[in-house]
Amino acid sequence: MNDIKDYMQQLGRRAKTAARVIANAESGVKNKALDVIASEIELQQAAILEANALDMQAGKEHGLDEALLDRLELNEERVQAMAEGLRQIVSLPDPVGEISHVNARPSGIKVGQMRVPLGVIGIIYESRPNVTVDAAALCLKSGNACILRGGSEAKHSNQVIATCISQGLKVAGLPTEVVQVVETTDRNAVGELIRMEESVDVIIPRGGKGLIERITKEARVPVIKHLHGVCHVYIDDKADIEMAKAIALNAKTQRYGTCNTMETLLVSDAISAEILPELEVLYQSKGVELRGCERTRRVLPNCVAAVDADWDEEYLAPILSIRVVDGVEGAMDHIHQHSSGHTESIVTSDHATAMRFMREVDSSSVMVNASTRFADGFEYGLGGEIGISTNKLHARGPVGLVGLTTQKYIVFGEGHIRQ
Amino acid sequence: MNDIKDYMQQLGRRAKTAARVIANAESGVKNKALDVIASEIELQQAAILEANALDMQAGKEHGLDEALLDRLELNEERVQAMAEGLRQIVSLPDPVGEISHVNARPSGIKVGQMRVPLGVIGIIYESRPNVTVDAAALCLKSGNACILRGGSEAKHSNQVIATCISQGLKVAGLPTEVVQVVETTDRNAVGELIRMEESVDVIIPRGGKGLIERITKEARVPVIKHLHGVCHVYIDDKADIEMAKAIALNAKTQRYGTCNTMETLLVSDAISAEILPELEVLYQSKGVELRGCERTRRVLPNCVAAVDADWDEEYLAPILSIRVVDGVEGAMDHIHQHSSGHTESIVTSDHATAMRFMREVDSSSVMVNASTRFADGFEYGLGGEIGISTNKLHARGPVGLVGLTTQKYIVFGEGHIRQ
Repeated sequence: MNDIKDYMQQLGRRAKTAARVIANAESGVKNKALDVIASEIELQQAAILEANALDMQAGKEHGLDEALLDRLELNEERVQAMAEGLRQIVSLPDPVGEISHVNARPSGIKVGQMRVPLGVIGIIYESRPNVTVDAAALCLKSGNACILRGGSEAKHSNQVIATCISQGLKVAGLPTEVVQVVETTDRNAVGELIRMEESVDVIIPRGGKGLIERITKEARVPVIKHLHGVCHVYIDDKADIEMAKAIALNAKTQRYGTCNTMETLLVSDAISAEILPELEVLYQSKGVELRGCERTRRVLPNCVAAVDADWDEEYLAPILSIRVVDGVEGAMDHIHQHSSGHTESIVTSDHATAMRFMREVDSSSVMVNASTRFADGFEYGLGGEIGISTNKLHARGPVGLVGLTTQKYIVFGEGHIRQ
Repeated sequence: MNDIKDYMQQLGRRAKTAARVIANAESGVKNKALDVIASEIELQQAAILEANALDMQAGKEHGLDEALLDRLELNEERVQAMAEGLRQIVSLPDPVGEISHVNARPSGIKVGQMRVPLGVIGIIYESRPNVTVDAAALCLKSGNACILRGGSEAKHSNQVIATCISQGLKVAGLPTEVVQVVETTDRNAVGELIRMEESVDVIIPRGGKGLIERITKEARVPVIKHLHGVCHVYIDDKADIEMAKAIALNAKTQRYGTCNTMETLLVSDAISAEILPELEVLYQSKGVELRGCERTRRVLPNCVAAVDADWDEEYLAPILSIRVVDGVEGAMDHIHQHSSGHTESIVTSDHATAMRFMREVDSSSVMVNASTRFADGFEYGLGGEIGISTNKLHARGPVGLVGLTTQKYIVFGEGHIRQ
């Protein structure tokens, strides 16, 4: 245990030193590193796939479930996607150094803000080896040093990828400590990382609810995260029926396992008798199990009865809970009580109702007449995303390069002193 | 203890309900409440001063030190200043509801951000009864509900002020639970407040280092804070000597007890023999004790020898540590190691050096040719400030109305679904 502590502390000190260098590196140098990493990933494709095969084999032996194995598995296409992701990040504007809001004050000083990196970012994630590349690239481009702690199930894949990243940093003349991959699979390494307030500025966990809950509970370092996504679509009585059907279907069935998938459909009482039977047919054709409140079941007698727990459940599966509510007021009450603060959408053609929902619903993304599945860094135009945050402080919603930076006040004087 | 827990939980639930109302209150209504509170404070001046006299008497009996008693004491002028502070906040623009960065995406959706209140803010502070008014007003204007926990030494003053606030909320037609003053002086109330993740969105502590350390250690709710202010002025070899002397003197002596006061002066080796003797005369005239490094003492033989602990000390007193460094590089190394991340200033006439210091120093305020004493919400044009933050996430530097809000993503579609 003490060895792990020492090892992690050492990573922390090195990261802190490297952070000063990468914070002040020019965009061209950072882009050079990213380009070289992309080429290295392509060059090392065979080695990456070989290492990944070892991880897959071990994963099967340890009885990992199908979903985890799918996330762990790499193939030529996925390796190519990593390289392309890197080149996309090269093309994104560098947020660091932006100076904004400079104003002259009555005293004569000029006050503004400058965008700067956060410093050292700790990222804790499971299975997907592509996170190693994505996270490293986003941190690097935003001028941060990072410490990456991947799952033990991906250790061989991550090691080869780490070599590619080192090579890119070296060729660009940057310290390799800008991106450090934790080499031990000891679980205590995570416990140490999330308590290293002296050297780590923020922790970003990506993984299952159990991992996030543990980190949230034990961390001393601030955590940017979302715990889960219980997203809602509300169909207002003034909704266009065809539009409502398309959005409700897309939000649930376009992908089941993502955090921005709708888990509960709210339907205005006034429109429920008209739309619910049509929706039932659509969901049945996709094999989605429906669980309804009492009023839903009056319209859809074959629907399973929802229990209280259904309203807080992130199914991540072809299951949908449906509740009939008293207009937008009832919908917002339900959302206020049960939402995880991720994403909610209203379908309505009434302007006042739309704007009211937009203003009053307190979630990281609020939508009008669009599928919750759009809540995503790429769809929002952030380029990459390192995750989605339901925190209220700092980055909220999809977190891209800007979310990995902060601002400091800058003051220009000409010898000004305070009177 | 269980009573306290129940009591605090009840305040939390009420605040959460009130937060939904105040978040959506119009600016005019919020301003109306602030105006009435200001008038009430003026009308109740006699009652406020009477209550304050009780607090002062109890404070003296309990042996509170002079500094605390000074902060606790109200007089006609200070009561008038509270009312004026309220009217200033009325005149500030309301940050809530601002929509920004709306862009059309290739999918057809329009994505932007809307500024919204944080929700429920817990404020924990000591002695100064004016914080009760300031904090309540800033939270109210920014659309937040708040729970105020003042020090037991100010309980009578705070109770009368709380009545004025309630009256203002009532007259404006807002729920009085928008501002709740904790009525028990039991210390466990603080312990409970900082763990109420379900109902409190952020804690802002204002007080001594002991209070802040305890809260930082025990809080489950995010804390916006600064622990202390070890601020630096660096005099570069390219500095204008007269300007450097004026800034170094002002930064230390304009007020000793504030967090933006300089505690350590860094002087470039190349200029130290010229400027230090002149500075010594100036500081001596103000009665400031100097503690110097070895190189400082070669120039100023009468200077006390600084020990290691001096470089991390927030004196809040007429004491100054001085270190001679090897140019801007040496200054930044010292700052990197010893700064509390609050405010640092460089005095130089060299553009490249100024911009390098500005870019590379990682503090909440970085200045060129200006006194650190300018690091303040009023001086920066924020109107009021609820405190200064050295956090890297969210609000950094002086925290005004905008720092008490967050942004959510808003998406406008016309029936868009994800492909």
